[in-house]
Amino acid sequence: MKITSVNNELVKETAKLLQKKYRTEYFLLEGEKCVEEAINTGIIIKYLFVEENSQFFKNIKNRIETTSTILSKISSTTTAPNAVAVGEKVKYKWLNTFRRVLLLENIKDAGNLGTIIRTAAAFNIDAIILYGDTVDLYNPKTVRSSVGNLWKIPIFEIQDINFLKDKFVNFEKIATLPKSDDSILLNDFKSPEKFLLMFGSEADGLTSELKDFATKNLTIKMTPKVESLNLSISCGIILYNLFSK
Amino acid sequence: MKITSVNNELVKETAKLLQKKYRTEYFLLEGEKCVEEAINTGIIIKYLFVEENSQFFKNIKNRIETTSTILSKISSTTTAPNAVAVGEKVKYKWLNTFRRVLLLENIKDAGNLGTIIRTAAAFNIDAIILYGDTVDLYNPKTVRSSVGNLWKIPIFEIQDINFLKDKFVNFEKIATLPKSDDSILLNDFKSPEKFLLMFGSEADGLTSELKDFATKNLTIKMTPKVESLNLSISCGIILYNLFSK
Repeated sequence: MKITSVNNELVKETAKLLQKKYRTEYFLLEGEKCVEEAINTGIIIKYLFVEENSQFFKNIKNRIETTSTILSKISSTTTAPNAVAVGEKVKYKWLNTFRRVLLLENIKDAGNLGTIIRTAAAFNIDAIILYGDTVDLYNPKTVRSSVGNLWKIPIFEIQDINFLKDKFVNFEKIATLPKSDDSILLNDFKSPEKFLLMFGSEADGLTSELKDFATKNLTIKMTPKVESLNLSISCGIILYNLFSK
Repeated sequence: MKITSVNNELVKETAKLLQKKYRTEYFLLEGEKCVEEAINTGIIIKYLFVEENSQFFKNIKNRIETTSTILSKISSTTTAPNAVAVGEKVKYKWLNTFRRVLLLENIKDAGNLGTIIRTAAAFNIDAIILYGDTVDLYNPKTVRSSVGNLWKIPIFEIQDINFLKDKFVNFEKIATLPKSDDSILLNDFKSPEKFLLMFGSEADGLTSELKDFATKNLTIKMTPKVESLNLSISCGIILYNLFSK
């Protein structure tokens, strides 16, 4: 199949997925690497748009050869990607076997979110909870910065503290804080068998609701001349250290 | 002083600093927080543009009250910042007292670079070397993502392997590699007293020139289901671990 007109209905429908309100069932995957990872991990691809004469996934259903103008129109990057796919959003079920869970509260930076998902997958986190008011998980920038790891880890959007109270009874509930007197330093902290590790936004930190819910406070030691770390960096440092010791 | 015309010569000159070729002596600082950190750290401010009736640094020399249209024109962000300053670039001298040096080769991502500078400052790195073909250090995105830490650590742009051979004779020269058979795992690695820690770009890794120059290879252990980490995350994990043990 070939499409060359930017006014084609399917092109218009696909471009709508750049806006959050249209991403109820489907989302955009940009670039061959991302699409390939998604297909290999079992994401259902509704449409695949590729450049003319491309050899990429020649035999997939609903594969459409098209122009770079159209690839540009249906993607969020300034340079047109070599492939754009429409993928079906995944619905995850909460499992009682989850033991290592990461919670992000009120996270607004789409790039940070994608990077954190990638890092969490690398360090064996079982599930991620997006808590409170959060950037859309299927924002193209999040998908891009997760570099194909968005669908390797179950992610849940939760607004209700009672869900947390119910699911994490025998867990160590760890609040990560920039600086605090009653915090344990990361270096002195051994990974608990079952934990909920909680991060707030870079600007505001965790809300008091989650601080009160915590059973331990954790801080990264650093020099006083720097005020704080980037959220995805703090998260990376702690996830690695809980993974490796 | 007040400027309200977008065609004012000073506004035009300032807007030029958005382009690398004009940033020979001066660079842009966006937002009050960034400007404040810079002034407090001793960066020389040539001009400061603020919103009308702003109370921000009321008594500084060459302070200009202006419109948000003009603030938008002389900044790189989509939303106009509340302050924009023209700062003087700093020239650093190489010191023989440097003991903990970070090298970044062919780094292209401006946001990653700023985040890494911020992290390096937090974990007591003495100096940073930008080696090879690198994004401009004074790119507004780098300045922004360093969150006021760009000028807390001396940074050098170096193209010459002989400089490295000369300056790092008694240093452990550490190549960080994604996966390698003769690598030491980070968890088994104790921080040497004097080190040059080297990272390549996320896409290509270190060139063979620097791999050959290295005396140790270092790798972060992670699950095989993820191919690699974001560069600034790898860098953050290693810098923290060398800082804390």
